[in-house]
Amino acid sequence: MIVKGNLIDCTDKCTIRIREKSCILIKNNVIFNVYSENMLPELLKDEKVVDYKDALIFPGLVDMHLHAPQFPFRGLGTDMELLDWLNTYTFPEEAKYKNIDYAKKAYTKFVESLKKSFTTRAIIFATLHKEATILLMDLLEESGLKCFVGKVNMDRNSPESLIESTDESVEATKDWLDICKGRYKNTFPIITPRFIPSCSDKLLKELGKIRGSEYGLQSHLSENPKELEWVKELCPDSFGYLDAYDKRECLHKSRFPAVMAHCVYSDESEMKLLKDRDVFVAHCPQSNICLSSGIAPVRKFLDNGIKVGLGSDIAAGYSLNILNQAVEAIGLSKLYWRYIDKNSRPLEFAEVFSMATRVAGSYFGKVGALEKGFEADLLVVDDSALNEGIDDIRKRVERFLYLSDECSLVAKYVSGEQIL
Amino acid sequence: MIVKGNLIDCTDKCTIRIREKSCILIKNNVIFNVYSENMLPELLKDEKVVDYKDALIFPGLVDMHLHAPQFPFRGLGTDMELLDWLNTYTFPEEAKYKNIDYAKKAYTKFVESLKKSFTTRAIIFATLHKEATILLMDLLEESGLKCFVGKVNMDRNSPESLIESTDESVEATKDWLDICKGRYKNTFPIITPRFIPSCSDKLLKELGKIRGSEYGLQSHLSENPKELEWVKELCPDSFGYLDAYDKRECLHKSRFPAVMAHCVYSDESEMKLLKDRDVFVAHCPQSNICLSSGIAPVRKFLDNGIKVGLGSDIAAGYSLNILNQAVEAIGLSKLYWRYIDKNSRPLEFAEVFSMATRVAGSYFGKVGALEKGFEADLLVVDDSALNEGIDDIRKRVERFLYLSDECSLVAKYVSGEQIL
Repeated sequence: MIVKGNLIDCTDKCTIRIREKSCILIKNNVIFNVYSENMLPELLKDEKVVDYKDALIFPGLVDMHLHAPQFPFRGLGTDMELLDWLNTYTFPEEAKYKNIDYAKKAYTKFVESLKKSFTTRAIIFATLHKEATILLMDLLEESGLKCFVGKVNMDRNSPESLIESTDESVEATKDWLDICKGRYKNTFPIITPRFIPSCSDKLLKELGKIRGSEYGLQSHLSENPKELEWVKELCPDSFGYLDAYDKRECLHKSRFPAVMAHCVYSDESEMKLLKDRDVFVAHCPQSNICLSSGIAPVRKFLDNGIKVGLGSDIAAGYSLNILNQAVEAIGLSKLYWRYIDKNSRPLEFAEVFSMATRVAGSYFGKVGALEKGFEADLLVVDDSALNEGIDDIRKRVERFLYLSDECSLVAKYVSGEQIL
Repeated sequence: MIVKGNLIDCTDKCTIRIREKSCILIKNNVIFNVYSENMLPELLKDEKVVDYKDALIFPGLVDMHLHAPQFPFRGLGTDMELLDWLNTYTFPEEAKYKNIDYAKKAYTKFVESLKKSFTTRAIIFATLHKEATILLMDLLEESGLKCFVGKVNMDRNSPESLIESTDESVEATKDWLDICKGRYKNTFPIITPRFIPSCSDKLLKELGKIRGSEYGLQSHLSENPKELEWVKELCPDSFGYLDAYDKRECLHKSRFPAVMAHCVYSDESEMKLLKDRDVFVAHCPQSNICLSSGIAPVRKFLDNGIKVGLGSDIAAGYSLNILNQAVEAIGLSKLYWRYIDKNSRPLEFAEVFSMATRVAGSYFGKVGALEKGFEADLLVVDDSALNEGIDDIRKRVERFLYLSDECSLVAKYVSGEQIL
């Protein structure tokens, strides 16, 4: 199949690449090649062409961090900082997913919304409930989206309604991974200790073992000052928050690296460890504003060669639209420059776009670019509400970034399959 | 006429007031009274009732600061600070409004968009072109929105394509005010010196005289550090930016007070003068992020009894939706608390809602509340995409604030006239 339109993606040099009226040849879910309109080989003249005319075609966007069970209360309760917010709003909501009927209703709505969004791939927290987590994975599998999903582990400092014993947590995780085996094509389990305060040393070490060389791991890191203090108390053996995970043997080399959300307060030594352990940072700017967490030093992460993707962090963030997160990321980087460090140059358009496509995509393999050999994740966008009188496609792209809620998603392909 | 639904507004004590299934009786453009469903007087039983069922009914929102001619490039060119941004993007665009055909096309689109938005009233910068300004005012008048509009004055430090001599500027302003007399029901002229760097001392003094006791005045204040330095150089007689306006006799008491946009760097002495001269602050959080300006000390303004409204500041801000500005205002106040002043408590939901309705509304008279004697500006909102399973109307309102782009505007009344 050939898909035709104005192609926009990011090169591996982090520059925006625009190819007007060009053709993507898709074979076996993968981009076989890209041709300009006039250079289409004779051999392909009879191939089926889906011509999206003047539409903009982007790689699918990746959401590196969100909590599916929190979807029902996004846009509510952003008047507290992290720890109070967890106890007041989040834990009571997550406890409801013990009830599989509730889970089915809520997760169905979440998956429908994610499917309609600009996101093609996501790395997702479920709850600690094994059954509801499998249900969520089944629904995601059906949607055609490609996701990592984690059954959450919590064996301490959690309410009675949302806690497991260490042994229960380990056993449920093993069971869950067994159930997942061979069940999914698009959906992958990922080891998911909630964060240090919710997980005993023993549990973390066991999860590290289960992870082995096969699974990725996602968790939270250095989000809020009070959380940092607490982690320091809980882990007197560690020189920092990431080091606490590392000392509990969670960060070893594996097929899929670790993903750490937030990293607002990561200092030089934590950055070094992030780099050494090949950890992906999920930057969640909207969440960091809503919970008054602060501004992550993203420019420094980039300067240190750390991979940074973007996360909606539903429901501490309220918008599923990753482009809104990209705009917030630019905005926060400007304030960081203004108030915290005049040496930290604000993020540019191409950089946040790259984070949401090529960088975060690399967690999934060859994903996130419109390039030979990449999986064919495509967004086809009608920006006609905004492009009147604008001939320059780069400008159309910039406007789409800021005003994407005023554009419409015409079609969405994930790994070559059209799902919208 | 009676309008029925769930009424939400802000009291004069800055608390959210919710009256479920209640009736607003509108007489002569004004809210004659509000009744609960069961308490509707016998006399009114035969009155025509428009029943919006479970919809949310809010007062109309007020945009205290925006530039109509910049609407075509919102979402573009936010990679510079104020002064470079003006020279690179803004002045060349504004110069185009000399051409009345261009102005007609662009302003028509702007007015259509404003009409469809949650804004019922706005305070607007046009350009220095008299003819195009009248055209904009004619279009706004036709829309049914209620707006103050200013022909801009600029007689120095401006490009050749966008400058007047002092005398031209004064004469054109007088002509324009003459043309406005008797021409409009909903549209009001407001004196509009661009900002100190663009206006000579003589021009400002003349504009102060023209303003007299009849007209309001809008301008920009203390937005960007480099702008502040420049103003200091230009006005060595003044102890601050607002004092420069004051010494040039622009801030005297009049029927309509002055409105100053931004005030990011207003210090204690400037706040005192803001209060003394009864100036309204138009807080433009999105703009202040996009142009890396900084965070305005809004909590301090409130503590000092200064009136603060919200402005989209199109096109330094990109969204016409004032609720997006309200969310940004809360977010910035959290970062202000985190990084600048731990004594500045973050803004609450009720406070930003009050800014956008009751406080900014007061510039227009009795406007911005669903209360006896207030002009009947109403927004009827269908939030059914978001309210499933939420019984508490306060929560529905909070969600609407954060996720208003996912709700639909069912009807819009301005001063009792239904315009949507």
